[in-house]
Amino acid sequence: MPPAHPFDDDKLKEECGVFGVLGVKDAANFVALGLHALQHRGQEAGGIVTHDPEQGFNSARRFGYVRDTFTSQSVMETLPGPLGIGHVRYSTAGSKGNTQIRDVQPFFGEFSMGGAAIAHNGNITNANALRRELIERGSIFQSSSDSECIIHLMARSLQKGIPERMEDALRRVEGAFSVVAMTRTKLIGVRDPRGVRPLVLGKLGDGWVLSSETCALDIIGADFVREIEPGEMVVITEDKGVESIFPFRRQKSRFCIFEHVYFSRPDSILGGRSVYETREAIGRELAKEAPVEADLVCPVPDSGTPAAVGFAAESGIPFGLGIVRNQYMGRTFIEPSEQIRNMGVRLKLNVNRALIKDKRVILVDDSVVRGTTSRKIKEMILDAGAAEVHFRIASPPTAWPCFYGVDTPERDKLLAATMSEDEMRDHLKVDSLKFISLDGLYRAVGVGEGRNNASPQYCDACFSGEYPVEPADMIAQGFQMKAAE
Amino acid sequence: MPPAHPFDDDKLKEECGVFGVLGVKDAANFVALGLHALQHRGQEAGGIVTHDPEQGFNSARRFGYVRDTFTSQSVMETLPGPLGIGHVRYSTAGSKGNTQIRDVQPFFGEFSMGGAAIAHNGNITNANALRRELIERGSIFQSSSDSECIIHLMARSLQKGIPERMEDALRRVEGAFSVVAMTRTKLIGVRDPRGVRPLVLGKLGDGWVLSSETCALDIIGADFVREIEPGEMVVITEDKGVESIFPFRRQKSRFCIFEHVYFSRPDSILGGRSVYETREAIGRELAKEAPVEADLVCPVPDSGTPAAVGFAAESGIPFGLGIVRNQYMGRTFIEPSEQIRNMGVRLKLNVNRALIKDKRVILVDDSVVRGTTSRKIKEMILDAGAAEVHFRIASPPTAWPCFYGVDTPERDKLLAATMSEDEMRDHLKVDSLKFISLDGLYRAVGVGEGRNNASPQYCDACFSGEYPVEPADMIAQGFQMKAAE
Amino acid sequence: MPPAHPFDDDKLKEECGVFGVLGVKDAANFVALGLHALQHRGQEAGGIVTHDPEQGFNSARRFGYVRDTFTSQSVMETLPGPLGIGHVRYSTAGSKGNTQIRDVQPFFGEFSMGGAAIAHNGNITNANALRRELIERGSIFQSSSDSECIIHLMARSLQKGIPERMEDALRRVEGAFSVVAMTRTKLIGVRDPRGVRPLVLGKLGDGWVLSSETCALDIIGADFVREIEPGEMVVITEDKGVESIFPFRRQKSRFCIFEHVYFSRPDSILGGRSVYETREAIGRELAKEAPVEADLVCPVPDSGTPAAVGFAAESGIPFGLGIVRNQYMGRTFIEPSEQIRNMGVRLKLNVNRALIKDKRVILVDDSVVRGTTSRKIKEMILDAGAAEVHFRIASPPTAWPCFYGVDTPERDKLLAATMSEDEMRDHLKVDSLKFISLDGLYRAVGVGEGRNNASPQYCDACFSGEYPVEPADMIAQGFQMKAAE
Amino acid sequence: MPPAHPFDDDKLKEECGVFGVLGVKDAANFVALGLHALQHRGQEAGGIVTHDPEQGFNSARRFGYVRDTFTSQSVMETLPGPLGIGHVRYSTAGSKGNTQIRDVQPFFGEFSMGGAAIAHNGNITNANALRRELIERGSIFQSSSDSECIIHLMARSLQKGIPERMEDALRRVEGAFSVVAMTRTKLIGVRDPRGVRPLVLGKLGDGWVLSSETCALDIIGADFVREIEPGEMVVITEDKGVESIFPFRRQKSRFCIFEHVYFSRPDSILGGRSVYETREAIGRELAKEAPVEADLVCPVPDSGTPAAVGFAAESGIPFGLGIVRNQYMGRTFIEPSEQIRNMGVRLKLNVNRALIKDKRVILVDDSVVRGTTSRKIKEMILDAGAAEVHFRIASPPTAWPCFYGVDTPERDKLLAATMSEDEMRDHLKVDSLKFISLDGLYRAVGVGEGRNNASPQYCDACFSGEYPVEPADMIAQGFQMKAAE
Repeated sequence: MPPAHPFDDDKLKEECGVFGVLGVKDAANFVALGLHALQHRGQEAGGIVTHDPEQGFNSARRFGYVRDTFTSQSVMETLPGPLGIGHVRYSTAGSKGNTQIRDVQPFFGEFSMGGAAIAHNGNITNANALRRELIERGSIFQSSSDSECIIHLMARSLQKGIPERMEDALRRVEGAFSVVAMTRTKLIGVRDPRGVRPLVLGKLGDGWVLSSETCALDIIGADFVREIEPGEMVVITEDKGVESIFPFRRQKSRFCIFEHVYFSRPDSILGGRSVYETREAIGRELAKEAPVEADLVCPVPDSGTPAAVGFAAESGIPFGLGIVRNQYMGRTFIEPSEQIRNMGVRLKLNVNRALIKDKRVILVDDSVVRGTTSRKIKEMILDAGAAEVHFRIASPPTAWPCFYGVDTPERDKLLAATMSEDEMRDHLKVDSLKFISLDGLYRAVGVGEGRNNASPQYCDACFSGEYPVEPADMIAQGFQMKAAE
Repeated sequence: MPPAHPFDDDKLKEECGVFGVLGVKDAANFVALGLHALQHRGQEAGGIVTHDPEQGFNSARRFGYVRDTFTSQSVMETLPGPLGIGHVRYSTAGSKGNTQIRDVQPFFGEFSMGGAAIAHNGNITNANALRRELIERGSIFQSSSDSECIIHLMARSLQKGIPERMEDALRRVEGAFSVVAMTRTKLIGVRDPRGVRPLVLGKLGDGWVLSSETCALDIIGADFVREIEPGEMVVITEDKGVESIFPFRRQKSRFCIFEHVYFSRPDSILGGRSVYETREAIGRELAKEAPVEADLVCPVPDSGTPAAVGFAAESGIPFGLGIVRNQYMGRTFIEPSEQIRNMGVRLKLNVNRALIKDKRVILVDDSVVRGTTSRKIKEMILDAGAAEVHFRIASPPTAWPCFYGVDTPERDKLLAATMSEDEMRDHLKVDSLKFISLDGLYRAVGVGEGRNNASPQYCDACFSGEYPVEPADMIAQGFQMKAAE
Repeated sequence: MPPAHPFDDDKLKEECGVFGVLGVKDAANFVALGLHALQHRGQEAGGIVTHDPEQGFNSARRFGYVRDTFTSQSVMETLPGPLGIGHVRYSTAGSKGNTQIRDVQPFFGEFSMGGAAIAHNGNITNANALRRELIERGSIFQSSSDSECIIHLMARSLQKGIPERMEDALRRVEGAFSVVAMTRTKLIGVRDPRGVRPLVLGKLGDGWVLSSETCALDIIGADFVREIEPGEMVVITEDKGVESIFPFRRQKSRFCIFEHVYFSRPDSILGGRSVYETREAIGRELAKEAPVEADLVCPVPDSGTPAAVGFAAESGIPFGLGIVRNQYMGRTFIEPSEQIRNMGVRLKLNVNRALIKDKRVILVDDSVVRGTTSRKIKEMILDAGAAEVHFRIASPPTAWPCFYGVDTPERDKLLAATMSEDEMRDHLKVDSLKFISLDGLYRAVGVGEGRNNASPQYCDACFSGEYPVEPADMIAQGFQMKAAE
Repeated sequence: MPPAHPFDDDKLKEECGVFGVLGVKDAANFVALGLHALQHRGQEAGGIVTHDPEQGFNSARRFGYVRDTFTSQSVMETLPGPLGIGHVRYSTAGSKGNTQIRDVQPFFGEFSMGGAAIAHNGNITNANALRRELIERGSIFQSSSDSECIIHLMARSLQKGIPERMEDALRRVEGAFSVVAMTRTKLIGVRDPRGVRPLVLGKLGDGWVLSSETCALDIIGADFVREIEPGEMVVITEDKGVESIFPFRRQKSRFCIFEHVYFSRPDSILGGRSVYETREAIGRELAKEAPVEADLVCPVPDSGTPAAVGFAAESGIPFGLGIVRNQYMGRTFIEPSEQIRNMGVRLKLNVNRALIKDKRVILVDDSVVRGTTSRKIKEMILDAGAAEVHFRIASPPTAWPCFYGVDTPERDKLLAATMSEDEMRDHLKVDSLKFISLDGLYRAVGVGEGRNNASPQYCDACFSGEYPVEPADMIAQGFQMKAAE
């Protein structure tokens, strides 16, 4: 299975997308479409659970793309009913590269008052401690996934109803989570008190939809109603519609700013604004902060494109696709015995030699993680005869790992954790290298006054090292927080 | 297998790509990489033949993408040797949708003086007649592919050497063909007398490469030497290098102009110029020919992008990605029982609603074939709240089928075969619709003075109905040529 | 996957085989071989768990035959270590025809003092009640298998050690069970207090083996040590060897007599005697009880053969293979539109027409369950020109379902539940039909004095309707026990 | 894929089975059933060609068992029509272990008067020479199979009709062949002039059947009409029925005597007699020729069983299944690191230890080829405690390779080619070893007076070295014929 982004191995990766629908005929087909639209949030595996009044709960979990795994009649027929939820996932920290099918969400639990299924996007930062405690008391875990804690906490709750049990369970849980769950008759959505990960509500005819992003509403023709609020739980039934509860102690909202930079699809709407436009605005801001004389603004495909369009518009320098992506990517070719320089990158990209030759080129990329591909791209551009190479990065230096549901390398693998901007420029051997400032990013996402350093408006821990929720399990494993200044 | 272009079903499709290499260690690995870079020329199946002095000829043919079929150690180990050729194909007219593995090139024949393998891009316009004649004389065909005629003609030639037999055979053949062939020691390339389809020569260390396009030279780090000339046969050996022969009666060159418009990859070089730049020039020309007041120039992804960049630059109207392509495309989802409007198109594309809303939008596309997707896209754009929709098409109206190796619908399925430009505009219900003129296209590809109508510089039969080689088999089946004026 | 017995669909089916080994290099390879030798006890799926001091517990579960699923290097390499257990299964009553991979044993549980895996052959007759109780208390079941109760009971035990927890758990469980289990260092075997299902101990070099049957010791060259006793638990470690415990209240032994008739392999040893010899003795006893004048003794292949050899030897009537089995069986051929009489049976068997013609034939079969195939075989024999057909059955009439780990049809599907011997003869339209008597069967298996009706020496519930353990769950579902006489 | 015979690697192997049917609805389903019944004649691959008046010729070729490859609706639907032929094959000498799907019969050829498909059982002994000649004249071979010569010879014939062209072609061919062929309307069967390989005619309602053996008539309920005669060609049409032609120069009939010994299924009828009865007669003859005092006659399963039954009956020594075959055979298990003696044979067989212990055992086997498995079986029997081991072989020593469609090792691998009977006994370290005499075998197959040495009634070249057709290609490759005496 080929990677979907040309530099998957040098990007932060959102680990999950969730989707649920209630009150439609053959809910599974809608869930499959919704997950397909959310595939960029997790490509490793997907799962769907549905409930039918006559045939009860059914589930299917598969490795691979939704387009390949949830499109055959024979699979979809096993998932009847008007209510369903689904999940796409990248691998979690626990089982990287060795995921077993039993680790694939949604998880299902049979309680004395009936079954429930649950899927979530995010990460539970006290999962290890919870798991240990539950095993002591006789719970048998079926997966290595931390998310399974929620089901066991629910099983042990003394509450009568499943939503009430879920409240009990989620109050024990720390971290970032957007949950989609279902019982035989209810579709439930929850966002953690800080609202780190997204979750939106949509309407489809008489039915209701929950989704990580609005682009999955579009694919099924549903209308966007509103975002679920931080700390909100919605319990949706066919007869009563949406009931809203706020079960947690109130916290300041800290939405993930990287959703704007890279994770969300450009056609999704976040905070009332198209992600594409926000990225274009980042490019404009960057052109103001870090101008440079050049002949061509060239995006690193595909994610650098909107910021490059903005940069070109602001700077007046022509925009051009100097790098072409092979749309049939693959990364497992057998390397010929004769050396091919930058073989890996050539499978994915090629340079428009005639366009680049003798030009001063500005390369606009969304982020620098390890810096390995930035280097290879620079070499391809120089090989093609560019006169100068200037990197402009549409996010601040990524210097800290994320513990809220995003796959990041260990800290010492992050280029920005060990080098200053100038050191990175020298390391990459480019003529200039500039990242957008943190304040500039805040402005571009619409916070006119910039970052409130005393109480930041977003979670920007990957740039600032300021973690809104203490990563308890990681600290127990030796992670060093940023020293207080 | 998902389609690679979002509108595969409404595009002309190049039917083949060819590649060959001589004088390198493990030629098959290079051929696989080359075919991967040519995958846009044919996605249905691929084949590789190699020769090793000790293990003789070996071949493998597979349905599916090169990245999936020619990347496993177990397959590649069966293809040893320093000499190899390969082929990717779309389906041919003869066996559409029902291709059998035996129809996949290269074809191999054992002659009394040794074996030879042959692959070609193009179409033989007198294949039916040749086939009938060969069967009468006792040839047993193993495939439904017309290309097999060449092997049988070679088997019956009275010449001693294989290149000489190939000359004999190709002189009997009419149509458009770029051939790559091999014997135990020779790599051979041929272009038909009019040079309708492309073929280039490259150098890789001490070895030699033949390829449909230069982008496949780039992927293996080979240097571009030159284009094979129309009517030229090159016979390449390790010791003597490239020998050039011109076996055919001389004809006026008529290269396929649609290679510039759509078939070739934007990073390939044709006629000394990047295809990307040519397409940008088409966009500029189009902006000059058919200007319109608007707020946004939006490409129909992905192939419309270079022309849209050119159109925006020339017109000064902002460029923006108003349509976003789902990179995990698929087309086999089960349609939910509740109606989703334009379900098919939603799987592939989504509109950036916030960007489009209340704007006057210019949509730039490379061509209009059946017009079905143009219509769906227009509806999506209007649904998203666009104020006006203007189509600008980077090629003249496609009104005639191609018989030279391109998959086109029957003539009455071509929108431009039955409607004028204005009728198409009304049919599509858009505010305006303009195609580039044939002269404009000629200027954009670099023919300053425009088309020489007495003796056109390119094959533009799909636009003009003027076929440089008479499609004998098709006429026998009832095809009506354009009436002489 | 073809059935292994020609009349799988008209036989009682043992549901499981278990195997374990401790103290050998690469235990998984031995477990795979052992399971292969036990494949006749369950063909649907198999599982293996191993433990390695460095790599911990690993498991693999697969549908299909062991020869196909546990023979690839890539699978076996994932199962390192000197200690392993395995299981082959037919489907259980709960999930017939719809088994999911999570239902395949061994089951694994992580306890606070470490993990344990468990596999069992038999059936828990109070599983429903236990399951209900465990769910009330917060256990989350991962499978529909009743055997999972044991793991949850262990998780909730207050004992410190895993063997002690297993004792606790098994004391809550009713029914028939031969358990093989493992911790990080221990191999554990248990038979239920009545010893309904078999379990034997073997020695392999310095290592130890547990197996359902001795034939699986032979395949790996292990020596047979002894049978595990009814109600015994053996805990085996590398340093202390075999420790024997009797954790249950003592019960009278009631081994399954049908293991002698059909389930066990003829080359296994039960009660000190080859199963083949026992079956031959049954045939001799049957010849004494129910003689008939005839020309040929013909076994119904393959399971009727030993009894037919015995019948022929005792009666002096020639033995001959009048029915030939197709060794490439299959049952999914598309039935040709023209009627083929007894199509299904013809795929599996053919009659030796020349041998049968004009003969009086005695057909010896091991049992009659639904009677459907007896009827078809009779017709084939008559079609082939036999003069007379006499059925001799090497077991008493099967009139009651088994609830101890054997797959039996519902009672009203059992021919003998609704008809007397004479009615069956008329129903099958044969010249004579005789079953061995229950006393005769007891004599043949070595109980000289026959059955002790006050306190039977074996479990013969399928013949007598006298169930040694009350089938509580089935009675709750409405099953009618035999009225006390 | 597991082997079907436990000692496939130490048996001669029939290389092909052929089957054809005309005048029935959905012929392909009947062909699939027929090939399934002939699976013992070739397990590597199978192919079916059918013709339908509307949909023309269709074919499918697959590796693997018929039960797995020709039973899915999706495959069989591609094979419509009332006329079809099929073929099962073992690998041929040319491509052993490396067969490609294009080598799988039936072969199809398009001639100017229409298409024809052909399949054959046997071997063409002058194929190399013919192939060379055809290539010289411009034929392109698509396979490495010698049988393809027939199609090319037909393509070059000057005759008008296909049957006439086939006559022409077969007159050029030497060797042993039973051919089944078809045109659009005709089903054709041919046996070579000596009738080395079998072919029978059957009637199914209004339709007709050709098959290698009668057991394939039984499976579809067809009636056996007669054997095709040596040198006969039957041309069958729906309206005219069977026309019989004798196109070859008359030769003395030399049917393969090994078909009686091993190749044919025991329930087939050869020369008016059940193969099972013939084998039982061989056992009786062997008991007369080579009696020995012993306690048990034990067949080597499964092919030795009929002769063992005959030997036991004649000698009065009890018959017993001392060796039990694992019906779930496989041969690819990973050998555990600790040595298991005779691992390979244990996967397939186990000894009934209790039955064998302290007994003098006569092992009856059908043939000895390399002798490797005879030796392993002897060891297993001795390990189990047998007092004496006596081998009795139901065929004469196999000392010469077969060139008529049977897979035999090279001559120096045949145990009997290098040792006398006594040397073999010592080599195998058994108490006695006796083969049936050649005369004894002739008597058992019904030739009362034994072999006519001047003009043998059968082909017995594998025993006698007297080849009825000169193996020209093999002699050209250096094979040494037996010196004339």
